[in-house]
Amino acid sequence: MKDIQIGIIGGTGGMGRWFANILKKQGYAVQVCGKNTGVTPADLAGRCDVVVVSVPIKITCGIIEEIGPRLRKEALLMDLTSLKAAPVKAMLKYSRSEVIGCHPLFGPLVQTIAGQRVVLCPARTERWLPWLRSVLQEAGALVVETTPEEHDHRMALVQGLNHLNSLTMGMVLSEAEISLAELSRFSTPAFQEKMGIIEKVFRSNPHLYAEIIAMNADIDPIIDRYEQVLSELKTLIRTRNTEGLVGLMAHHAAGLWPPDS
Amino acid sequence: MKDIQIGIIGGTGGMGRWFANILKKQGYAVQVCGKNTGVTPADLAGRCDVVVVSVPIKITCGIIEEIGPRLRKEALLMDLTSLKAAPVKAMLKYSRSEVIGCHPLFGPLVQTIAGQRVVLCPARTERWLPWLRSVLQEAGALVVETTPEEHDHRMALVQGLNHLNSLTMGMVLSEAEISLAELSRFSTPAFQEKMGIIEKVFRSNPHLYAEIIAMNADIDPIIDRYEQVLSELKTLIRTRNTEGLVGLMAHHAAGLWPPDS
Repeated sequence: MKDIQIGIIGGTGGMGRWFANILKKQGYAVQVCGKNTGVTPADLAGRCDVVVVSVPIKITCGIIEEIGPRLRKEALLMDLTSLKAAPVKAMLKYSRSEVIGCHPLFGPLVQTIAGQRVVLCPARTERWLPWLRSVLQEAGALVVETTPEEHDHRMALVQGLNHLNSLTMGMVLSEAEISLAELSRFSTPAFQEKMGIIEKVFRSNPHLYAEIIAMNADIDPIIDRYEQVLSELKTLIRTRNTEGLVGLMAHHAAGLWPPDS
Repeated sequence: MKDIQIGIIGGTGGMGRWFANILKKQGYAVQVCGKNTGVTPADLAGRCDVVVVSVPIKITCGIIEEIGPRLRKEALLMDLTSLKAAPVKAMLKYSRSEVIGCHPLFGPLVQTIAGQRVVLCPARTERWLPWLRSVLQEAGALVVETTPEEHDHRMALVQGLNHLNSLTMGMVLSEAEISLAELSRFSTPAFQEKMGIIEKVFRSNPHLYAEIIAMNADIDPIIDRYEQVLSELKTLIRTRNTEGLVGLMAHHAAGLWPPDS
């Protein structure tokens, strides 16, 4: 199998480069096409056995539509995007090849992939699924398999809600009359840790985070619920009802960490 | 100075015990009165040179009112509460002694005090301020001095907003149809880190967190602002306006981390 041709569209940055490195370490020849490589996505798609789309969420389906028809029936078309429903649907529609959606649940800067999770959404596949599983497992990843819809539903909470939560606190802080630098004189360990998470969302790759939040079809009811819980909290805090607040915390803690779990 | 009498009211748990340990390590004799010690707060207050109130925020001012009149003019009355305006006001009102408000900006479980911050609010003091400073600095703390009002204003953001932010995400998650255990199959490093912070707020000491949020007089405008930013985000997300979201993030990032800082 080591003589297969693998092409990564968007393989010069982020997760594309990360995946290329994993494959190269395992002895595979990998061709990449990125902003300055001179190779076109269509070229790669026509000649590779495995074609990996690793471009921003917003242009993923467009790239798939462009290259999908060029893949051979025996090839594998896969993507590394943070959402799975739309890309997998596009890959099934625009190609005749095998199709697997893939989402590594971590960023390109993790020190080691050991113990990190990678979601696979096998959509139309026979021979390539065992191969992809073994590549990821050999690299140390925990492979989780599910449907594109379940994946996106989970990610609306794990990523969408989480990053939205980070944005809200950052935005409130940025409009305070005290600068963050001045506030840091008074910081607690919990505040420092939270700010580390928030800074990543605002500064590392704003387009990615914006797309992860806004392009997840399941995010809307979560924002509605967010508004409701904030309103519940506001009512208790306005009336200095600390006992009510403790009761609310106990109720939700029991839901999050049930005694028998 | 090592022969001074130090009494800690609430010295059997949390930060009271932490402070007692620091003092004992430096060679001071410390008497504590807690739930099961048989010593009353009034006893301690009458015979000690330094009296430290370390009880829940809600009963702090009541204890101060009870013991304040028993302190000698040459003594020091101080507290370790997470809010400073009300306790310092009460200590000034109900005693003739020296008064310093104190807020260690960390929990009793930190591994080392080295590099951790302790806020002092010197309110009526001459001889005791240098002593308290040196005790804390000898233990390795960074001492930050300010007024009770400024302290509470900062803490409305550093603690109030931070814990409120953790509560909102936990509450939204607890009402999702997916359990946290099931969700953990899909967790990212950022989600795991955030959940660690959230779990502490819900489970370690709900009364303390509820009081830190709700009893801070400066929290109300912060919640109003929180509702506004959530509404701004909702509008952009509902319309899948990722470019608008990126622009908003850039605007706030420039406020939080100005280019010249």
